[in-house]
Amino acid sequence: MTTPDTPRYETLSWSVDDDGILTLTLDRPDALNSFTVTMADELEDAFRRVNDHDEVRAVVVTGAGRAFCAGMDLTREGNVFGLDESLAPTPQDLVDRFDAPEIRDGVRDTGGRVSLAIFDCRKPVIAAINGAAVGIGATMTLPMDVRLVSTKARVGFVFGRIGIVPEACSSWFLPRLVGLPRALEWVYTADILEPAELLEGGLVRSVHEPEDLLPAAYELARRFTRNRSPYGVALARQLLYRGAGAGHPVDAHRADSLAMFYASMADGKEGVAAFLEKRDPAFEAPASRVPDVFGDAR
Amino acid sequence: MTTPDTPRYETLSWSVDDDGILTLTLDRPDALNSFTVTMADELEDAFRRVNDHDEVRAVVVTGAGRAFCAGMDLTREGNVFGLDESLAPTPQDLVDRFDAPEIRDGVRDTGGRVSLAIFDCRKPVIAAINGAAVGIGATMTLPMDVRLVSTKARVGFVFGRIGIVPEACSSWFLPRLVGLPRALEWVYTADILEPAELLEGGLVRSVHEPEDLLPAAYELARRFTRNRSPYGVALARQLLYRGAGAGHPVDAHRADSLAMFYASMADGKEGVAAFLEKRDPAFEAPASRVPDVFGDAR
Amino acid sequence: MTTPDTPRYETLSWSVDDDGILTLTLDRPDALNSFTVTMADELEDAFRRVNDHDEVRAVVVTGAGRAFCAGMDLTREGNVFGLDESLAPTPQDLVDRFDAPEIRDGVRDTGGRVSLAIFDCRKPVIAAINGAAVGIGATMTLPMDVRLVSTKARVGFVFGRIGIVPEACSSWFLPRLVGLPRALEWVYTADILEPAELLEGGLVRSVHEPEDLLPAAYELARRFTRNRSPYGVALARQLLYRGAGAGHPVDAHRADSLAMFYASMADGKEGVAAFLEKRDPAFEAPASRVPDVFGDAR
Repeated sequence: MTTPDTPRYETLSWSVDDDGILTLTLDRPDALNSFTVTMADELEDAFRRVNDHDEVRAVVVTGAGRAFCAGMDLTREGNVFGLDESLAPTPQDLVDRFDAPEIRDGVRDTGGRVSLAIFDCRKPVIAAINGAAVGIGATMTLPMDVRLVSTKARVGFVFGRIGIVPEACSSWFLPRLVGLPRALEWVYTADILEPAELLEGGLVRSVHEPEDLLPAAYELARRFTRNRSPYGVALARQLLYRGAGAGHPVDAHRADSLAMFYASMADGKEGVAAFLEKRDPAFEAPASRVPDVFGDAR
Repeated sequence: MTTPDTPRYETLSWSVDDDGILTLTLDRPDALNSFTVTMADELEDAFRRVNDHDEVRAVVVTGAGRAFCAGMDLTREGNVFGLDESLAPTPQDLVDRFDAPEIRDGVRDTGGRVSLAIFDCRKPVIAAINGAAVGIGATMTLPMDVRLVSTKARVGFVFGRIGIVPEACSSWFLPRLVGLPRALEWVYTADILEPAELLEGGLVRSVHEPEDLLPAAYELARRFTRNRSPYGVALARQLLYRGAGAGHPVDAHRADSLAMFYASMADGKEGVAAFLEKRDPAFEAPASRVPDVFGDAR
Repeated sequence: MTTPDTPRYETLSWSVDDDGILTLTLDRPDALNSFTVTMADELEDAFRRVNDHDEVRAVVVTGAGRAFCAGMDLTREGNVFGLDESLAPTPQDLVDRFDAPEIRDGVRDTGGRVSLAIFDCRKPVIAAINGAAVGIGATMTLPMDVRLVSTKARVGFVFGRIGIVPEACSSWFLPRLVGLPRALEWVYTADILEPAELLEGGLVRSVHEPEDLLPAAYELARRFTRNRSPYGVALARQLLYRGAGAGHPVDAHRADSLAMFYASMADGKEGVAAFLEKRDPAFEAPASRVPDVFGDAR
């Protein structure tokens, strides 16, 4: 089991419990955990790092204080409005020069870098939304696997109020999570949504009293990981997200054939043996070693 | 603000109110607004034209008289059954000669041309389904953003009753709106569906008394446009529809990065300034100038 | 009407009634119909064969005895765990050597071959889930059009319990049928789900008393086929499944234009004539002759 040093961040806190459940806390409570370029960099780093920390089995994301994340910090320099208008980027620039500094730092949406890191995560990710989650505070939760909210949570895709657009890859996620008509209505109205509407719309799994929110998230995280192969879970997560975007089932067939081949060799034989012997399995294969079964990691 | 002449149509009426809400009325009430090649051409023209009329902020589509649209007019010459059997078109012909006259006029589904024009629309589109909407009368509403129905509405994907298939790009839309199993069942049974079933299946947003239908549609249209940037709304609509079909979130990331860049420059700075000054924004950027952020406009 | 010989299988029974409804019964009741390589081969053969049997109008799949299918038979030789570890297959191998014997027999998931055959089926397919359906017993029902369950049904995506991953192309289907968050939760927890949860999650259409399950399946199959064109139904099925995976509505437009062209010539003219003459249609075009309207059959 790898145990690199615990990372230290300015805007996040990182804490792993005895069950391997990492709590990532957005930790700027005096600013309602509003999002900055530093927070984007640190979230991206944290989720990339999670993939190499084999002792981390699942991730719970929550906010310090009374908010989850009140959106982009509009009072700071260096946010997305510090644009160089002379760039005039084109769609082709985002393909050809995706990682070129002027595109990466001057054009690419910071929230999207975070969403892609969460999308690539090899562990289950649970959002425990404890309060206001608006703008990027809402869209950053879309690539998480499950959203739990407290009765105090309020979620809003409020971009339209300030003349801008939903970001953080939300156009891929939101229609898949709540359907196109509801996604369009929530974005057009830019309403602040209450827990009952979020539940009815399918965006959140369950609503909890504030003091019950984190315990519920941890209980779910334990159900997702106890007696599970980290290797198998990582592959299953990759399969379901990539399969949801695949054009034809044969693409899923190619990937799940490979995933089954490698998972069977890694922990499947032990899993079958334990099942036949009616005992708990002793899984050993680490998530850090799963292959890219779609063959086009980006 | 552009104000070209109001278009005049044989089968449609076009009326814009003081809030910029265009009502497009299918206007052949004696024929239950049944669909003809002329209506297809006029709907396609109207939705393409909406994109250049910057005073139009949203579109409400409804039917004159007691029906919304009773499907293809099977009593007229020139409908889809006037086929040249000698053509024997192949899938490759639809790629290579998509706009060639013999393919465009002799093979391509007329309803599909309408659906693609609605898909490309830069304004929110609301269907106010006042009565029967069957066949193309049902499928033409799928690329609209929201469907409201009156208690008198009846919707049917009735193609199977006459040995044909759902069209107007409905195979892209219907599974995304109601899920694959319900889409298959509705198409296989070819049932006429009542408002309660439509609501339960997620196809329609709400059911209204007949006299309340248009007011509800207009109220929603106003909520979608009041204090909103037409430029930002147009980009958000493009993002959500294209994102729903994108294969990988990175495709959404490329597009929403560009959309955010251009929206920020267009109206976002004013939006943030108004927000910080706690006043209503004065948005000015017209929808007619939004870029294609996916880079593959067709 | 073609009437080839009734096929004979070791693990399945094949029975066609007077309405052309084929019942395919998983028929290893002493082993709870658990899945073997022979069953995979026979299911694949049966679904490919259905496409050429024009007297078969719809398919109902059920299990003999008290189970539907208790998953992979883990007690047998030749199952997916008999892997040649020296193969080390890559994603590119699954593209370049998809049908090469060492990939086809040594790497490709057997359940996926079955799912692809069901995906390609030209007739409506209804799962009548009479009891336990776990592992491949659950995932093989995903490419079926409708799932009915008895009160005794229990469905589980239990792969995680033995350290492996969901297969049979389920990463394409499951998120589209129940949404990504529920798909992830069901796979992570590997829970055995009761009928009420299956219904609430949208995976199954309806729950029936055990003695009412098959009658309900047959009634639905008759509603899907009575007075319907087999040719039109086959094309509609192809359109909806392929459209659900298409990237852009224009791809659906190309395919449904072709489907409408050929369906109109095949049975559409008779359909319209019967409609105008207010009589039942006499459809004649066989499903075995439908074209591939997407032009990329695999």
